[in-house]
Amino acid sequence: MTAISGNDLLVRNVRPLGGGIVDILILDGRIADTTTTAPDGTEVLNGAGALALPGLINAHCHLDKTRWGLPWQPHTPGPTRDERIAADRELRRGLMASTKDRAAALAEHCAALGTSHIRTHVDVEPEFGLTGVEALLELREQIAERITIELVAFPQFGLITNPGTAALMEAAVGLGVEVLGGIDPSSIDNDRAGQIDAIFAMAERTGAGIDIHLHETGEEGAASLELICERTQALGMSGKVAVSHGFCLGTVEEARLSGLIDAIAAAGVAVVTYAPGDSPVPPLKRLAEAGVTVAVGTDGIRDAWTPYGNGDMLERAMMLAYRSGFRRDEDIELALDAVISGGARLMGIEDRGLAPGCVGDLVLVEAETVADAVIARPSRQAVIKDGIRLPAVSSR
Amino acid sequence: MTAISGNDLLVRNVRPLGGGIVDILILDGRIADTTTTAPDGTEVLNGAGALALPGLINAHCHLDKTRWGLPWQPHTPGPTRDERIAADRELRRGLMASTKDRAAALAEHCAALGTSHIRTHVDVEPEFGLTGVEALLELREQIAERITIELVAFPQFGLITNPGTAALMEAAVGLGVEVLGGIDPSSIDNDRAGQIDAIFAMAERTGAGIDIHLHETGEEGAASLELICERTQALGMSGKVAVSHGFCLGTVEEARLSGLIDAIAAAGVAVVTYAPGDSPVPPLKRLAEAGVTVAVGTDGIRDAWTPYGNGDMLERAMMLAYRSGFRRDEDIELALDAVISGGARLMGIEDRGLAPGCVGDLVLVEAETVADAVIARPSRQAVIKDGIRLPAVSSR
Repeated sequence: MTAISGNDLLVRNVRPLGGGIVDILILDGRIADTTTTAPDGTEVLNGAGALALPGLINAHCHLDKTRWGLPWQPHTPGPTRDERIAADRELRRGLMASTKDRAAALAEHCAALGTSHIRTHVDVEPEFGLTGVEALLELREQIAERITIELVAFPQFGLITNPGTAALMEAAVGLGVEVLGGIDPSSIDNDRAGQIDAIFAMAERTGAGIDIHLHETGEEGAASLELICERTQALGMSGKVAVSHGFCLGTVEEARLSGLIDAIAAAGVAVVTYAPGDSPVPPLKRLAEAGVTVAVGTDGIRDAWTPYGNGDMLERAMMLAYRSGFRRDEDIELALDAVISGGARLMGIEDRGLAPGCVGDLVLVEAETVADAVIARPSRQAVIKDGIRLPAVSSR
Repeated sequence: MTAISGNDLLVRNVRPLGGGIVDILILDGRIADTTTTAPDGTEVLNGAGALALPGLINAHCHLDKTRWGLPWQPHTPGPTRDERIAADRELRRGLMASTKDRAAALAEHCAALGTSHIRTHVDVEPEFGLTGVEALLELREQIAERITIELVAFPQFGLITNPGTAALMEAAVGLGVEVLGGIDPSSIDNDRAGQIDAIFAMAERTGAGIDIHLHETGEEGAASLELICERTQALGMSGKVAVSHGFCLGTVEEARLSGLIDAIAAAGVAVVTYAPGDSPVPPLKRLAEAGVTVAVGTDGIRDAWTPYGNGDMLERAMMLAYRSGFRRDEDIELALDAVISGGARLMGIEDRGLAPGCVGDLVLVEAETVADAVIARPSRQAVIKDGIRLPAVSSR
């Protein structure tokens, strides 16, 4: 006889990825073999024919910047990246004290929408110090049963040009931050090799991963991307380095793009996209075919950078498919696979899926097929994290 | 004492376009002067502080093609327009008999989401004859209290190259269809002037409006657009002609674009966009600044052309804003204004708005501001058409 744990759950009458109806038994937080019988007294959740998906993964967010739950704030900055950075700093002066509360409101909302894991970049720089990192470290302890948070120490305001930032980033890793961030080494720091080398050197010392924001387009971005690939190979960091946004992948000529994709694939660098509306989206299908890990994030949600976003990773998969011109089921499934499998590979999340042995992170939705779930983004019928059913979704 | 009509309604505690809380009295289907008192016994709807918007307008749809309410159908055609046209014809052979039912399911759904008016293109050509037109004419009579349907006789499969189509289009106008459609005169019919002249001649004979699908990009589309502007001016049809999609407006060089916008403005031709994901979106702000009417549609919803779409015009406004790179409130409001005022101008819908005298078409949502309503797309708290509250929104 097996003892019943809090992480045991029998999910009845669900269709894994749109397949035939089965029961999924979760024992001690993991999906059990199909031959295992549920111990007497196991909690039962009737899926009523719902489609079951693995937990969704938000591979790029900025929980510390969000105004989620606060009154509507009209967007004030001008249209350039630098104007947004300036507004971000200014507007956040009054918001640093509420970082944990704001981040918590959004993280709880994301969890209720089926996001089991989230990678969030946290600003680290002399004026705000480690305030954001400390707030997020506290939050992730408290919220761990509902959503797993991975942290990136992010030099939003520059690294080389903002002295003291590098030391704070390294200190953040000492506190438990897993990944070192970066941003537009050529156009923010005006020192491509300087920023990139500083980050890789820190990674070598600390063992942290790397995830660099690359808004730079065309040849400027391509040169930065190439250097990141070079350093990744030189330091044997394949699988530990990512480039977020990678707008340059949508703006260079075909011959250059082809070479860049080869370089990314050879270096084992991942690409993270949020399916932007007015910037080029990296070519998901070609990257996937080349074996590149592509993960999907929301980017910031309702912050000084953007008023958009609702934290729904099914909607993000839809946007990625829509922006990519995908119409066929297998292509739409590829967009969701980037959210789930791509995010898992990026963040080193093992045992993601619905097979026996996988972690019991499940999302149930009323949909016929995976493509239907992505296109329709139905409300979440139930969300299960580590075998425990989460409270019902928030209304908004 | 005033007699109470079925179209009287007192909408209490709402914020018109996000302003201060007021009551809106609708008498006999029209918004009354603020000094008018509701007759005793008038039905009351408590808005509970909701934001009130005028009824939304879907300026481009294909109700006859939709599979709304039918099982999920994986997208089968290849990626070109011509492959989609071929698949559309093939798949619809089995669906023509259910045109009215399928269109009704989608139209009711759109109405429940706050769409008060919809312009739908209906295929007209020899194989299917006027089957679609007749189905939609029947439907619009039956559904008139919930949504107003305007019809476009659409030569989906070509006009010049598909003999018999023109006569059917003209017959459709005789049956009550208001607008004559067209499609890619150069690349579908290989006869730019031939198709355009045929449509304008029919319009001259019948008094119908014109709305031509223009997927053609670059110079091919620009030349078609110019010819449409020329004919519009020559026949004095300013305000009665529209170009749908207009992808060329996003693909020509700046100097050419500037001239095209001038020509469109001078001719009084409207532009209708659905904010495509992977095709260029016409430059809304520049067109609006030039005085061009820009209206917004969904295009087809869940049909042989596309698996996407949910009929929500707030979501369409969000997509238009997102694709246009809009972040400031006034820009996001411009996207919704295209949906409401642009659609009204396109379709000749008078008295659209929330001022006294306007038609009592209202949508109530829980949102702080107009921009918030567009970004968040909250569920519809109530939808009012001609002063009558509609049944609650369908779940999906």
